[in-house]
Amino acid sequence: MRSSARSDASSRAQTLPSTPTSSPRRTPTSEFIAECFMRRAYLTGFTGSAGTAVVTKDKAALWTDGRYFLQAEKELTHEWTLMRSGNHGVPTTSEWLNDVLPSGCRVGIDPFLFSFDAAEELKDSISNKNHELVLVRGMNLVDEIWGDARPEPPKEPTRVHDIKYAGIDVPSKLSFIRSHLTENGCDAVVISMLDEVAWLLNMRGSDVPHSPVFYSYLIVEVSTATLFVDSNKVSEDVLEHLEKAGVKLKPYEAIVSEVERLAEKGAKLWLDSSSVNAAIITAFKSSCDKHMKKKGKAGEKVEKEAYSDEPTGVENGALNAVYNVSPVTLAKSVKNEAEIEGMKNSHLRDAAALAEFWCWLEDEVCKSVPLTEVQVAEKLLEFRKKQDGFIETSFDTISGYGANGAVIHYRPTPEDCSSVGSDNLFLLDSGAQYIDGTTDITRTVHFGEPSPRQKECFTRVLQGHIALDQAVFPERTPGFVLDVLARSSLWKIGLDYRHGTGHGVGAALNVHEGPQSISYRYGNLTALQKGMIVSNEPGYYEDNSFGIRIENLLLIKELNLANSFGGISYLGFERLTFVPIQSKLIDVSLLSPSEINWVNDYHEEVWDKVSPLLSGDTRDWLWKNTRPILDVTHRYSHAQDIA
Amino acid sequence: MRSSARSDASSRAQTLPSTPTSSPRRTPTSEFIAECFMRRAYLTGFTGSAGTAVVTKDKAALWTDGRYFLQAEKELTHEWTLMRSGNHGVPTTSEWLNDVLPSGCRVGIDPFLFSFDAAEELKDSISNKNHELVLVRGMNLVDEIWGDARPEPPKEPTRVHDIKYAGIDVPSKLSFIRSHLTENGCDAVVISMLDEVAWLLNMRGSDVPHSPVFYSYLIVEVSTATLFVDSNKVSEDVLEHLEKAGVKLKPYEAIVSEVERLAEKGAKLWLDSSSVNAAIITAFKSSCDKHMKKKGKAGEKVEKEAYSDEPTGVENGALNAVYNVSPVTLAKSVKNEAEIEGMKNSHLRDAAALAEFWCWLEDEVCKSVPLTEVQVAEKLLEFRKKQDGFIETSFDTISGYGANGAVIHYRPTPEDCSSVGSDNLFLLDSGAQYIDGTTDITRTVHFGEPSPRQKECFTRVLQGHIALDQAVFPERTPGFVLDVLARSSLWKIGLDYRHGTGHGVGAALNVHEGPQSISYRYGNLTALQKGMIVSNEPGYYEDNSFGIRIENLLLIKELNLANSFGGISYLGFERLTFVPIQSKLIDVSLLSPSEINWVNDYHEEVWDKVSPLLSGDTRDWLWKNTRPILDVTHRYSHAQDIA
Repeated sequence: MRSSARSDASSRAQTLPSTPTSSPRRTPTSEFIAECFMRRAYLTGFTGSAGTAVVTKDKAALWTDGRYFLQAEKELTHEWTLMRSGNHGVPTTSEWLNDVLPSGCRVGIDPFLFSFDAAEELKDSISNKNHELVLVRGMNLVDEIWGDARPEPPKEPTRVHDIKYAGIDVPSKLSFIRSHLTENGCDAVVISMLDEVAWLLNMRGSDVPHSPVFYSYLIVEVSTATLFVDSNKVSEDVLEHLEKAGVKLKPYEAIVSEVERLAEKGAKLWLDSSSVNAAIITAFKSSCDKHMKKKGKAGEKVEKEAYSDEPTGVENGALNAVYNVSPVTLAKSVKNEAEIEGMKNSHLRDAAALAEFWCWLEDEVCKSVPLTEVQVAEKLLEFRKKQDGFIETSFDTISGYGANGAVIHYRPTPEDCSSVGSDNLFLLDSGAQYIDGTTDITRTVHFGEPSPRQKECFTRVLQGHIALDQAVFPERTPGFVLDVLARSSLWKIGLDYRHGTGHGVGAALNVHEGPQSISYRYGNLTALQKGMIVSNEPGYYEDNSFGIRIENLLLIKELNLANSFGGISYLGFERLTFVPIQSKLIDVSLLSPSEINWVNDYHEEVWDKVSPLLSGDTRDWLWKNTRPILDVTHRYSHAQDIA
Repeated sequence: MRSSARSDASSRAQTLPSTPTSSPRRTPTSEFIAECFMRRAYLTGFTGSAGTAVVTKDKAALWTDGRYFLQAEKELTHEWTLMRSGNHGVPTTSEWLNDVLPSGCRVGIDPFLFSFDAAEELKDSISNKNHELVLVRGMNLVDEIWGDARPEPPKEPTRVHDIKYAGIDVPSKLSFIRSHLTENGCDAVVISMLDEVAWLLNMRGSDVPHSPVFYSYLIVEVSTATLFVDSNKVSEDVLEHLEKAGVKLKPYEAIVSEVERLAEKGAKLWLDSSSVNAAIITAFKSSCDKHMKKKGKAGEKVEKEAYSDEPTGVENGALNAVYNVSPVTLAKSVKNEAEIEGMKNSHLRDAAALAEFWCWLEDEVCKSVPLTEVQVAEKLLEFRKKQDGFIETSFDTISGYGANGAVIHYRPTPEDCSSVGSDNLFLLDSGAQYIDGTTDITRTVHFGEPSPRQKECFTRVLQGHIALDQAVFPERTPGFVLDVLARSSLWKIGLDYRHGTGHGVGAALNVHEGPQSISYRYGNLTALQKGMIVSNEPGYYEDNSFGIRIENLLLIKELNLANSFGGISYLGFERLTFVPIQSKLIDVSLLSPSEINWVNDYHEEVWDKVSPLLSGDTRDWLWKNTRPILDVTHRYSHAQDIA
């Protein structure tokens, strides 16, 4: 699945009420959220995944980005002004607030829905017009309107993620975190990212669509650990699992008072202010202030500029905290052997489901059976459900025929979608959550005769895909260095795509995870490391015409090369995804011999790995779709004939 | 010529006395300097191009980087401690000062030899131990010791750079700069980079080896311009040229008093604090302070944190200045048509000289005539001297046989150099200044039988060279994005090189210029632009064994492609350098058909462009050395035979 589509959603900075950002009662920084947290959709009618709603006494405006302009135009009523973020002359939310409000207003946010950093940024930017940022505690204004009609928060049971898939037990993971605490002179860390809690505790849940996580917080102290979760979600099994690891339970809502208690004790906290919400961090700071004032003690060295509702006064909350990225983030991204094994196995089963699906779809379309994009996605789900360990989809399937394929974030609805035919390209980006792994794959096919233009574009995308797949790079290389490899074949004819090339993927966890990425944006300096998983998904989108994307998941591995200049490791990729790439769409004359070999080798590998899981028509389909394309010898001897 | 070798020299930050950084009496930020400014060499004996000498009452230490460890070990006497910069555990100069000096010392620098930014950085870093940075004005401590033995400053005459080579006349260039001044609300700009003065005034000089520049400053005001230069260097011709453009002359030494006069007038200055020296900027600031105190007027908005010798007090120097990169830097880097024409023409003459040279050398080595690396470089100079418009070399020739080729910054001396034979690789990196252009080329050859290892490495370097040469990229792409293209073929077998891939080149000016570069360092975000010139010089160096580098200069041009996704321009390269690449060193089996075509097309172009300038043996040599390598058809039909 396209990386930037979702990663944009998690980087929204200045947002107001209904956008989920951080945690409790309420919502954590997640790409997918439970219905009761879909406050922006309830308030505005706009159902896109990224946006910001701002309401003043006489105005209401909604910001969203280019992926959603058309959808927002359709869904918003006339009371709302649509702000097309990124378009020339369109103000940011804070610029707009500074413009429409008279100087010295009070701007409210729900502090559980903003990370501390995002709240700080908003506070700073509106202070230019002397506006004050007010953290509205104890109530959410949208919920007040929503009232009884608001859905209940999810109460889904959690489960233990088996050690055979998790690979490392909870006590070992906790000691790892504790060694980090000690190294940094901290007494405790607050973990608020749901996938980090799930990874650290070898637990999974289903509070949220597509991600096997559950609403919770975790505080790890040097000798204890406390999970803040609705106890109804915790079965006997899970309880025993937690007890064994020395993890206590407290109610979900107790997080703030617990943080205040730590402040009173004088504990030094590790806080990732980019993910922990403003409610928790400001509560900690105020509590430190109160406590320190009582003790009249001057603080230690300030780690980061202090935050305070009152700009003057002692700011001891800053003195008792280390603001740093969560110690779980990198650890989670580097997969252990069991996680890798689970990812490999689940990808093979997923490949079997996809082979059945593509075989079926090709047949249906050839027989001219009318099928909508939604029906096709539903059928794919049926095939996946038959696979062992299937849980759910890992994101909303992007099933786009023809021009719909060019809408990068397209999501068909039963009321408004196309039929899949044989006159144009069909782009299908989908993934699944299995008990042992998470998948994400895109293929683009044509069931009739592709145009030379479509073949040229597809082949250029494929060349980019191959170039990245085959890349070898020294350790400590950030992902953005490799991005150009996926684009240069398109650039040669003046084409490009407006999204990143690769995102991290969790092991039986979120389909998008950091910290690594492969993107044309140069901001992410995280080095690609052995054991990380990334997607490889270059594309090309011709507006109102067609879309192309080819996506596999890749595992980063250390290579054993003839040399190792500089005495360092050289890394490369191992493919996890094994589904045929439609040969019909390849213009072989554009490929180099080594690119032709790549396609043939990949298809041979697909056949070898997936055919044992198939039988009958599907096996025949796989055989047909993994035959070598025009081979090198043939091609050049032909060139000789005509020379 | 290797970019990082020299660009490192201009980025040395915390240096002390003898290192040239900025300007008068004294020296500007230049990679090459006049003998009278070689104070570090005089004081320490170390003659490398990059280094920092620090002397305390009882210690003396010299910092240099990995390129010079061996040379410094040889050249330094035992009084000096060699500090191997970049090695584990080696302190920076300021760390060392903070370590060896008791708290609260005074550390002196010559403020004409430090850019303002470099002085600021040093001041900040030693303030941790309460050391004070003292700007020693009116004398240079090394010169005091040097005394009468110190060489005279250069007095070489300047000349007008003909409009047929410069392309744009001085009044037009001055209006361009003035429009920038007006846009930024400035009254004047101080230009202290020698190549910027030369470019802006269409003048050239020869105060410094290899660079056609002259010691000077330029102040451009909205209605006047003043060149600060030794008037003995200005002939009648030049004087007339300057008068026509409304440029007045003042003595070189008058720069500081002129800047003080501008401060008194209340003028707002544009200052590039990364290149303008600390003496000028602090003089301006102090003068502003004095003037403002007199007037008792509060300042405007502060553009940048203020600098002051006294940490307290009104700092109006900051209020009356805009600190920004010089408005000349980018303008100079984007070549106009006449400059491009001159670069192309001079490259063809240079290619003719190189063809004569290589033809001669091959013959001599085959006849086993003993020739040292220095003799070979001298002979090359002879061939170049015969070409029209030749002025001098554009840098010290790197002539390295065998293991010497692996010393990236190797410079042979008559007393200590190898003979060039037929048992190993010979790397030759050289360039010339012509009246109409500047060249820089590296070729690596073998006069006997290269080993398979050498061929493999050479071919990988060539593949990187070809990949960068053939790159197409959207406008606004910074150079570092393309760097990986030049490395990925080496990375595939675990090899790499420890220098950048490309640097900017001046038109009949400095062989290294900014602001663009193509490097694995990600700091330089300057976009590559149409009209810029860059080198393409991947390499590979096997310690104690051999070195390989293949370097051409490339002009960035706009391409007319079938598409232009995003409605933007796509850019690519046009080669300026036309000298054969030794086919003997290519392992054709590693090349793709398109790489083979590149080599054949390049050699065809070399023959077409350069053969008309040659005759006799040299023409025969060029013919032999531009024949197609094993062609594609042949290769693959052979593959078919054995299949």
